[in-house]
Amino acid sequence: MAEYSLLAGGKRVRPLLCIAACELVGGDEATAMSTACAVEMIHTSSLVHDDLPCMDNADLRRGKPTNHKVFGEDMAVLAGDALFALAFEHMTALSSALVVSPKRKVRAVIELAKAIGTKGLVGGQVIDLCSEGLNRDDAGLERLEFIHLHKTAALLVAAAVVGAILGGGTEDEIKKLRKYARCIRLLFQVVDDILYVTKSTDKLGKSAGNDVVAGKLTYPRLISLERSRELAEKLSKEAEEQLLGFDPNKAVPLVALASYIAGRHNRS
Amino acid sequence: MAEYSLLAGGKRVRPLLCIAACELVGGDEATAMSTACAVEMIHTSSLVHDDLPCMDNADLRRGKPTNHKVFGEDMAVLAGDALFALAFEHMTALSSALVVSPKRKVRAVIELAKAIGTKGLVGGQVIDLCSEGLNRDDAGLERLEFIHLHKTAALLVAAAVVGAILGGGTEDEIKKLRKYARCIRLLFQVVDDILYVTKSTDKLGKSAGNDVVAGKLTYPRLISLERSRELAEKLSKEAEEQLLGFDPNKAVPLVALASYIAGRHNRS
Repeated sequence: MAEYSLLAGGKRVRPLLCIAACELVGGDEATAMSTACAVEMIHTSSLVHDDLPCMDNADLRRGKPTNHKVFGEDMAVLAGDALFALAFEHMTALSSALVVSPKRKVRAVIELAKAIGTKGLVGGQVIDLCSEGLNRDDAGLERLEFIHLHKTAALLVAAAVVGAILGGGTEDEIKKLRKYARCIRLLFQVVDDILYVTKSTDKLGKSAGNDVVAGKLTYPRLISLERSRELAEKLSKEAEEQLLGFDPNKAVPLVALASYIAGRHNRS
Repeated sequence: MAEYSLLAGGKRVRPLLCIAACELVGGDEATAMSTACAVEMIHTSSLVHDDLPCMDNADLRRGKPTNHKVFGEDMAVLAGDALFALAFEHMTALSSALVVSPKRKVRAVIELAKAIGTKGLVGGQVIDLCSEGLNRDDAGLERLEFIHLHKTAALLVAAAVVGAILGGGTEDEIKKLRKYARCIRLLFQVVDDILYVTKSTDKLGKSAGNDVVAGKLTYPRLISLERSRELAEKLSKEAEEQLLGFDPNKAVPLVALASYIAGRHNRS
């Protein structure tokens, strides 16, 4: 049941980011691979739990029935738990001590554990659930950004940071990758929100119904469509600026990722 | 909400075992403390999830309303997730690299992650949920022991093993502690099952109702009361034998734990 959700597709942005960050600072793919897989396991785990009837009550995920729809609620809770555990096992047990020093592994565990907990995925989901049905004035941009930064950005940022740690990046390089990842995550959300309000529901790749019913917050709703587009432009530029000091050849995938997100035309 | 369940009481057997194992092999309390706390967080997390309406649907835990009864199902799922994450953060971030080498920390992470996943807590709970309502012939001793070994023994054994790892135990010492912990876990279960069928329900410290309704497996039901008592005797002896090669003064808490479990008169 864990496999069902893990292999159900998705863009694999987080693991790609992890590996690209590792390569950017001079490491190779193999060094970051088991941790990149772990990041995707953690991401999938949080989606399985978020989709549960007691949370977002989603029937579809990535175009397929959600985990609890196929295996039942009890198994979906356990599938998420198993994926969390497997992630930490995978990243510590499978990457050889010859390739990654235990010291770097420990630092990567800390980074990913923080990205899950009360200051990451869980913290963001708690505030998100508490914000449903709030109107524009009660909600506010600050709350919206808190939710995005914790619920989704935390793991994306951690993916880039652990990639840089495992690849042997300097503290300054790690810092730049942290900032790059923060920018592209916010960029993704702003673009997603713009598409959400400008595209008709039937063209969207994910079920928009739940968001509408629950009255979720979006950037255009909060700061207008025009200012949302300006923000997207600014974030795209800021992300690319973080990559200036690195080998341009190695920066190609990360530049491409920022461009891809900025120019996206479909939510999926 | 994580704190509510973490500080709701309980015997703290797992963290005590972790620290006692560390001390047995020559380490001190401080070396194992953050990992001992992590073990209790993982244990609590699994209890919070197991108590959910979609699983054991328990109203009470340690004499208090269960997490979802107080905070709601969504928050209880997230509280469990947060505790999992906090456990890994706590054991890696809070124990100084001067006291515990990164190499030992990584080994401890692997051991605990395995104890949670499909070969540990989660695996045991899945088989347990699939076994409800089975009659004696369909169930069998093998299934009962599988459930106990995975659902509960895995973490208890891991607690002792990580204590020994952190304390700098030799491979042989770690092996002995693994065997000791397996014995006392099975011992605990056999004694618990004996008390369950010989004591009246109103004297029990935990709600027996769910077990009865679901037709859970017990040792007396499977191998008779007399043979259960013989098994308890055998396990108690085997546990103490594992401690023979160590400093008798340092073995005192672990000998006492085995005696306490063997002589227990109340389920709680």
